[in-house]
Amino acid sequence: MKNNKNKEGRRKFIQQTAFASAGVMLINPLGLLSQTNKSLNMSKNIKSRGYAGKDEQSTLVKWDFERRPVGDNDILIDIKFSGICHSDIHTIKGHWGTQKYPQVPGHEIAGIVTAIGKNVTKFKIGDQAGIGCMVNSCMECDSCKNGEEHHCETTGMTGTYGSPEESSPTGITQGGYSNNIVVTEHFAIKIPNNLDLKYAAPLLCAGITTYSPLMRENFKKGDKIGIIGIGGLGHIAIKLAVSKGAEVYAFTTTADKKVDIISFGAKEVIVVDSMEKLVPYKGKLDYMLSTIPYDYDVASYASCVKPYGNFVQVGMPINGHLSINNFQMIFNRVKFSASLIGGIPETQEVVDYCAQNNILPRIEIIKAEEINDAWDKVVNKEARYRYVIDASTF
Amino acid sequence: MKNNKNKEGRRKFIQQTAFASAGVMLINPLGLLSQTNKSLNMSKNIKSRGYAGKDEQSTLVKWDFERRPVGDNDILIDIKFSGICHSDIHTIKGHWGTQKYPQVPGHEIAGIVTAIGKNVTKFKIGDQAGIGCMVNSCMECDSCKNGEEHHCETTGMTGTYGSPEESSPTGITQGGYSNNIVVTEHFAIKIPNNLDLKYAAPLLCAGITTYSPLMRENFKKGDKIGIIGIGGLGHIAIKLAVSKGAEVYAFTTTADKKVDIISFGAKEVIVVDSMEKLVPYKGKLDYMLSTIPYDYDVASYASCVKPYGNFVQVGMPINGHLSINNFQMIFNRVKFSASLIGGIPETQEVVDYCAQNNILPRIEIIKAEEINDAWDKVVNKEARYRYVIDASTF
Ligand SMILES: [Zn+2]
Ligand SMILES: [Zn+2]
Ligand SMILES: [Zn+2]
Ligand SMILES: [Zn+2]
Repeated sequence: MKNNKNKEGRRKFIQQTAFASAGVMLINPLGLLSQTNKSLNMSKNIKSRGYAGKDEQSTLVKWDFERRPVGDNDILIDIKFSGICHSDIHTIKGHWGTQKYPQVPGHEIAGIVTAIGKNVTKFKIGDQAGIGCMVNSCMECDSCKNGEEHHCETTGMTGTYGSPEESSPTGITQGGYSNNIVVTEHFAIKIPNNLDLKYAAPLLCAGITTYSPLMRENFKKGDKIGIIGIGGLGHIAIKLAVSKGAEVYAFTTTADKKVDIISFGAKEVIVVDSMEKLVPYKGKLDYMLSTIPYDYDVASYASCVKPYGNFVQVGMPINGHLSINNFQMIFNRVKFSASLIGGIPETQEVVDYCAQNNILPRIEIIKAEEINDAWDKVVNKEARYRYVIDASTF
Repeated sequence: MKNNKNKEGRRKFIQQTAFASAGVMLINPLGLLSQTNKSLNMSKNIKSRGYAGKDEQSTLVKWDFERRPVGDNDILIDIKFSGICHSDIHTIKGHWGTQKYPQVPGHEIAGIVTAIGKNVTKFKIGDQAGIGCMVNSCMECDSCKNGEEHHCETTGMTGTYGSPEESSPTGITQGGYSNNIVVTEHFAIKIPNNLDLKYAAPLLCAGITTYSPLMRENFKKGDKIGIIGIGGLGHIAIKLAVSKGAEVYAFTTTADKKVDIISFGAKEVIVVDSMEKLVPYKGKLDYMLSTIPYDYDVASYASCVKPYGNFVQVGMPINGHLSINNFQMIFNRVKFSASLIGGIPETQEVVDYCAQNNILPRIEIIKAEEINDAWDKVVNKEARYRYVIDASTF
């Protein structure tokens, strides 16, 4: 599905797209296409406005840009809500490697379908739809065929923002801090009507990123599961694990989150103001999931897991660098591994599961102009627990 | 079994030991007790001579010291051969933490029993016996009862050298770079008569340290196993894995080991002079074992293991510090864990297994005066593949 054509190929591709665009369905039955009341010219780039990083240092600024035309397999989503993930901050600030700018972050996207390409079957105009951390992959390798598009073995997945993309007028994918987005239908998630879009948004990254490793663990009812770092990911992880029957131990460095965390269903909250606090839990838990997005004392936390149990890292530190004290690892005998989001079918699964079981993130709605403030608060652990941008304010 | 008495208790303990020592069997049928031809006074400390570290910087020097008297549950071993392990170097140089000096390293000890306490049943005078990395533990906790004395849950294991030990005249345990050693019989390994002591010595650390994780893996015949770092531990790991039916891929940075490594039974030797050499093996192996005793690029090697497979670290870096690139870990999905030696029953098992199957380390016998040179060569990757000290030269 990914387009790896050379420049000549790209021109051809653009011509073909223009030609094919006559077949795009253009309906706006609910008046949802706020940007225009007249028919959209599907051969033309989509005008978009959002907030972009301009370099590693600066705050985000308003930015008008263009997205590719809606292709035969694409849908256009009018974004209603967009979650703020710590990954957005790390990426734009260059913590994970050099970036291209301007770049619009955001990979927790929920909105309404306002146009569909002629081959689209999964969505119709007016449907609720979401986009998570990826927007493309080869769709031909074993991983893609098995619904593990994030582990695409040929081209790798195309991230929702910052990934090179020939079809994008800006040369890279542009994310969800914006008023609309064009995406291949396969990479969009159906959001059930009973799930409010503002709650759906955080499920597209925070939800799937914690759901996937939790489900892989196949834990039994009553198993003791530790969740480390109770922010956007951690608080949803608690709710998911509790709903699946786990006894959850929540590890946080923020004492004033305690009451909230109990309300999420945790059995116990451990305020880790010193590593000594971990000692009573040594070898006691069946499994642990860590959302900490910075380098930290992995082995001390891992020692809370029973020998030969799993410790899974989902937070991504600066430059990916984690330090592990191997002296502790030889004694704790715990298996450390990391987990990356989840595939499209499993993302659909977590969204459906949360809709059915009324598992909703604890969110705070903000305006576009509050994004930079919100970023500071996320870094300072002041988010409670997910900032979600009202996309009507872009 | 470990003695945690206070000072008053210790005096009592010494008196009891002196009293009980009348019951010690004293025989020297083979003239093995080289230090004396007259009856050993079992209430007295045992005179010993060896090579000790005096501080972190200096080379090892000759040292005369005393060991505890042979207690009721103890045996006295006349050491014949003593292997040199990279751990000896790390410990004495303070790479793993502050040490007490003088300290005699060495935890690959093979010799002949020359005296036994009155309660000893496992050995008789003249038996071949070995000592590995530990000489005591509580023997009352679940781990100790289950033959995992190295994971003793109360006091922790007492290491063969450098561990605080009340019964030792020097205040710490003193290891195998010496002519004799006193040890509780439980922590001595029976060495079958058909196994030459000089080959037995390296099995007590290098053998068990690699055998234990390999056996835990329960791999199938034909499984692809990677061994990283082909020194003392790595070369035995290859032989063990091959003898159990694995297809072994050996990763070394030393090109001129290639012919040797093939002779050990490896299917393929990968000379890792650049990380690029690992790329063709990405996701290809069922399991990997790393003996590298320094910090290194763990994640790049781990990426050679299939998703959800195990990568086990047995080498211990300086201060235990390992760096892991979590970007690689999210994609490779490999489980990293570390393994510490093995329990006494399993150490007996590997010694018996090697005796039965004629699995012998490739060794080079050296004199005591060559120890410091040998250490330099170990650090410079010039050992082929285990230096074993002829203890008659102490
Ligand atoms: Zn995210
Ligand atoms: Zn693919
Ligand atoms: Zn060793
Ligand atoms: Zn114990």
